[in-house]
Amino acid sequence: MKIFIVHAHPEPRSFNGALTDTARRCLAEAGHALVVSDLYALGWNPRSDRANFTTVLDPGVFRQQQEEAHASAQDGFAADVRAELDKLLWCDALIFQFPLWWFSLPAMLKGWVDRVFAMGAVYGGGLWYDRGRFAGRRAMLSLTVGGPASMYRPDGLNGDIDRLLYPIQHGMLRFTGFDVLPPVIAWQPARVGDEARQAYLEQYRQRLLALATTTPLQFPSIDDYDPETFTLKTGVAA
Amino acid sequence: MKIFIVHAHPEPRSFNGALTDTARRCLAEAGHALVVSDLYALGWNPRSDRANFTTVLDPGVFRQQQEEAHASAQDGFAADVRAELDKLLWCDALIFQFPLWWFSLPAMLKGWVDRVFAMGAVYGGGLWYDRGRFAGRRAMLSLTVGGPASMYRPDGLNGDIDRLLYPIQHGMLRFTGFDVLPPVIAWQPARVGDEARQAYLEQYRQRLLALATTTPLQFPSIDDYDPETFTLKTGVAA
Repeated sequence: MKIFIVHAHPEPRSFNGALTDTARRCLAEAGHALVVSDLYALGWNPRSDRANFTTVLDPGVFRQQQEEAHASAQDGFAADVRAELDKLLWCDALIFQFPLWWFSLPAMLKGWVDRVFAMGAVYGGGLWYDRGRFAGRRAMLSLTVGGPASMYRPDGLNGDIDRLLYPIQHGMLRFTGFDVLPPVIAWQPARVGDEARQAYLEQYRQRLLALATTTPLQFPSIDDYDPETFTLKTGVAA
Repeated sequence: MKIFIVHAHPEPRSFNGALTDTARRCLAEAGHALVVSDLYALGWNPRSDRANFTTVLDPGVFRQQQEEAHASAQDGFAADVRAELDKLLWCDALIFQFPLWWFSLPAMLKGWVDRVFAMGAVYGGGLWYDRGRFAGRRAMLSLTVGGPASMYRPDGLNGDIDRLLYPIQHGMLRFTGFDVLPPVIAWQPARVGDEARQAYLEQYRQRLLALATTTPLQFPSIDDYDPETFTLKTGVAA
């Protein structure tokens, strides 16, 4: 498989760094091709604006989606965005490696999505959800969380982790067509001790080796929705 | 009231710009004090890393929360973070003005939260949720959404808007103690025509004038949770 990890942590010696080091070793041993975008190491620019493009559709008013569609048609993406788009189009499986900051993606990784998931190149014209550009490919979140799992249950203080990850797993990854695998979560790695940290690394290794065979999360199909209102034909979702 | 708007849109002539212009006029007329951080105009840096601080606790390994706590104790925040912290500590009401990008905050605004909501200065030591640093103050999201409201119902293709906003409203704003008012949402402002856009601006004006009196969203209290496991004493949340 061709695997692309987008890695977002400012400290290489963090547990996020250890997880991506594990991925490098284990995927090489298994004969997979791996590309890593280490966003802090790259000096990635997370601000989405006219600097995303070399082309200009409207010099007066910046309408991002229109500029994206124009750049997609004219090969007008800036070099940093183009490089990430090429990795994305190359891969069979996409992994986001990140610490959960404020219950969502670090700005570096959110800015990667904001700039790279461009209308035209990545979605639009009926290409979304199970009809998306990346249909048949796989995606997975690998994240660290500062608190214990009990805080992230449906009855937990910080809220259900599935609910917190829904904008990412459904809104970013499923929206663009990926089959989204269950997330790999390392709970409070700074506090659990070496043995538990090794177990997290081994858990990640097993999940990486099972990338092609793990059952994806289930979401409704675009065919389940009324094509006028985009509400479920059968009523409220589970 | 002292009101602080954090505004995140790359185009001043966008509808987000019109909403913040409306806020400037209406709040001045009503005699409120207003500060706006226009993140794109400021050239805000959304990357959270050692540049958040003038102090260094551990030069070997960057552990963000520990560096935040150290900087809080030593007055060691970088000038850009310090300026935003001062506005935050000054205000009675905080408003995030943004376009919903990929079902969450634009990276510019997420990076504002990542860097400014620092352990020590903003949370920690038992200061969270209804015991948070900003308890008694008010916060509100004002956002634009590219699709129609029907797509964002519980049975809508893109998922329930309340579920999508939960990481922001509960995880960022309620976490730090704010009473969170219902969001003000302008659905697909680029498509609805001038009359509907004017109605959105008027809706926002009314909500701004009612900032002090609007009933906040209801969340469980920290007292509703078991202090060991941080799960609800009474079972699963609604």
